[in-house]
Amino acid sequence: MINYKCTISYDGTGYSGFQRQDNSKTIQEQLEKAVSTIHREKITVTGAGRTDAGVHAKGQVINYKSNLKIPIERLPYAINSLLPNDIVVYEAEIVPDEFNARRDALKKTYCYYAYISKFIDPFRRNHALHIQSNAGLDINEMKKAANYLIGRHDFASFKASGNPMKSTVRHIYNLDITRADSMLKFEVTGNGFLYKMVRIIVGTLLQVGRGKIAAYSIPEIIEKKDRYYAGPTAKAHGLFLEQVYYS
Amino acid sequence: MINYKCTISYDGTGYSGFQRQDNSKTIQEQLEKAVSTIHREKITVTGAGRTDAGVHAKGQVINYKSNLKIPIERLPYAINSLLPNDIVVYEAEIVPDEFNARRDALKKTYCYYAYISKFIDPFRRNHALHIQSNAGLDINEMKKAANYLIGRHDFASFKASGNPMKSTVRHIYNLDITRADSMLKFEVTGNGFLYKMVRIIVGTLLQVGRGKIAAYSIPEIIEKKDRYYAGPTAKAHGLFLEQVYYS
Repeated sequence: MINYKCTISYDGTGYSGFQRQDNSKTIQEQLEKAVSTIHREKITVTGAGRTDAGVHAKGQVINYKSNLKIPIERLPYAINSLLPNDIVVYEAEIVPDEFNARRDALKKTYCYYAYISKFIDPFRRNHALHIQSNAGLDINEMKKAANYLIGRHDFASFKASGNPMKSTVRHIYNLDITRADSMLKFEVTGNGFLYKMVRIIVGTLLQVGRGKIAAYSIPEIIEKKDRYYAGPTAKAHGLFLEQVYYS
Repeated sequence: MINYKCTISYDGTGYSGFQRQDNSKTIQEQLEKAVSTIHREKITVTGAGRTDAGVHAKGQVINYKSNLKIPIERLPYAINSLLPNDIVVYEAEIVPDEFNARRDALKKTYCYYAYISKFIDPFRRNHALHIQSNAGLDINEMKKAANYLIGRHDFASFKASGNPMKSTVRHIYNLDITRADSMLKFEVTGNGFLYKMVRIIVGTLLQVGRGKIAAYSIPEIIEKKDRYYAGPTAKAHGLFLEQVYYS
């Protein structure tokens, strides 16, 4: 068996998320359909992260196994020719048999975009959160709050219910907020993320920016280990799975 | 009668162009539906320029007349609440009775975007032309060619057939080509443009970049006054109506 690893980018707007579901259009389904056609067998694809409906990816990683050997430099072209043009494979390599895109991911970086303006921007409507300009965000307070989240913590307060996990301890290595003109960018790198954790972090930081949550209360919110105390979940369409790191 | 002028932005991807047509979804139809609801009468909207199917706008200008007075600062919010979020009114003002968005436009600026990369970028797929990286464009030659197009010329060679116009003489004031990383931007300002003229200019300049048309042959192509001699029409989805100027 040959183990193929592909790095892919997709616009999640038209999809019910990454993971295959009955009666829903998903990224995984599109990939499996294309790859199964090329390899002439039914193939299951493993993704590094399960992005939700409307969430995008610039560096999602998948792997799959097949007995059929395809010249690796031609593989992206072959798969792309069978994919809709909102999903693109831009790198492919053959990896050791034991490689698993999900299990072996050491770190992931997600980016979340928001823009501050009076009206919706039609060209960003599916790729960044619209914040009315009259909201007046205090970016410095948001940065202070972000610093409290960096490190190894139990993030139970920042996890949506419905998806039980053994441990809710995660390590956030970086959480940067940058502003360029009207565009606000959150970039977070961690060893793993709980269900909707990035969106709850962004939603909480935006509440800090609006003065609804005090920056200094973040350690308390973490301490509570209760979803009730964190801010709302920011909308899916501002979120991008940016990069997945392996050893 | 009150004469309302609005500046609008739209993502043309899902539309058959600006101009109203039977059995097609158009920008004009969406605007007229919204405005007619607000003003409680059937209203016809005049657009500064008729963008084709798939063409976008960041600064399209329209005007329409109504007897019903709406507070001008609230008008964009009122119209936007009735528009799909790929069309946005971001400025409104009351103008003199004789103002006509189409007839009174003195200059227009269009931008055309193309990006050079190995694979399609899912996030640019509807808003910039994809050029395979192996194409190797000579930007300097393209700039030389562009300079020949600046000025007052008979642009008959750069006009798609099917739309008879009295005169094919137009004045191009500026035609700039800039490259930032993989993104190529064409910006052209003129007193008016013939049918598909900007896209034929871009298509011709790209042929110059590829070495298929010599930069020095542009004056000859103009001289021929025959569409046959110019390059192909660049795809619609890279084009944006950027700004319309009035006195």
